[in-house]
Amino acid sequence: MSRNVVGAEIERLIQLLARLPGLGPRSARRAALHLVKHREKLMQPLSHSLADVLEKVSECSVCGNVDVVNPCTLCADPRRDRSLICVVEEVGDLWALERAGAVQGMYHVLGGTLSAIEGVRPEDLRIASLIDRVRTGEVREVMIAVNATVDGQITAHYIMDQLDSTGAAVTRLAHGVPVGGELDYLDEGTLAAAVRARRSL
Amino acid sequence: MSRNVVGAEIERLIQLLARLPGLGPRSARRAALHLVKHREKLMQPLSHSLADVLEKVSECSVCGNVDVVNPCTLCADPRRDRSLICVVEEVGDLWALERAGAVQGMYHVLGGTLSAIEGVRPEDLRIASLIDRVRTGEVREVMIAVNATVDGQITAHYIMDQLDSTGAAVTRLAHGVPVGGELDYLDEGTLAAAVRARRSL
Repeated sequence: MSRNVVGAEIERLIQLLARLPGLGPRSARRAALHLVKHREKLMQPLSHSLADVLEKVSECSVCGNVDVVNPCTLCADPRRDRSLICVVEEVGDLWALERAGAVQGMYHVLGGTLSAIEGVRPEDLRIASLIDRVRTGEVREVMIAVNATVDGQITAHYIMDQLDSTGAAVTRLAHGVPVGGELDYLDEGTLAAAVRARRSL
Repeated sequence: MSRNVVGAEIERLIQLLARLPGLGPRSARRAALHLVKHREKLMQPLSHSLADVLEKVSECSVCGNVDVVNPCTLCADPRRDRSLICVVEEVGDLWALERAGAVQGMYHVLGGTLSAIEGVRPEDLRIASLIDRVRTGEVREVMIAVNATVDGQITAHYIMDQLDSTGAAVTRLAHGVPVGGELDYLDEGTLAAAVRARRSL
């Protein structure tokens, strides 16, 4: 879009919105217009909310979660099981597990996966601090809950090697049929894994 | 999502982002995470950009366009043809026509269409000020470029009636086959209109 039409300020807003996942250049333009049109009810609150999050929210220095306090609410919660650390790739994975109420232990957010193609090395991830936590703490089990992708699995194996000397048990999530999932739509790898890990009824 | 997991500040940001067109609750959560993860490169610039637009951009009191100056750049441009006013529903339509370089005249943004269902009455739209502009100005033609929807057409007819006494010619956009469009994919109404309005080669 030429600058003449919308002005540099709105053009800049459109460009920034277009960098959000799920918004392309066209939908970013629509979103910007929507903001301008709903100035009091949406643009002002969103502007304040962003400033608020920017000011208050930061990364937890222990686990890498994001929160208004540091250490984060999860790390500070005395009711959680400190003998278990669940290792995830991103904060979004932590949120998903928390929504499911699936983990009663602690978390550790790697910040991605190792990747030869994208040049992500162990020192680019929160791996050293994980090893430290396991070495110095009362950790008995490290559950590696990374995505079931090639990079995820490579990262899981690397971490397992690093944890070898700590004595902590290393586990991973079970593969299988998603609850409510239809067999016909599942890939062969998942089906084969679900059959291998079958349980008696 | 429970407050325990993400904290009230991020929860609020997610809720606001979810109100943008094109983002649902799930993609809003992903967008919020993306912002938190790219704090310096995206969240900070977006926060500043929103504050900037909020401070500087306002509605043009003449045509309803949004711009950093009032009257807007288009209304103030002495090279534009003041004898033609192009009436559109929304600012986005104005941008689209400007990108196409299709209109050399002035614009008038209605701010929507009349709608019995949504209770939008003539006084809820920028119609009175359009009639005023046509009455007091040197306007010879009013081109009604509203969407080809039922509400759009009802609005066009209402405006045409109101303009009856002003002596200005009222025109509408041509219907026809979109440039590059395949006949097989077009609806029958468009095809019928394109046939009726056929031109000699």
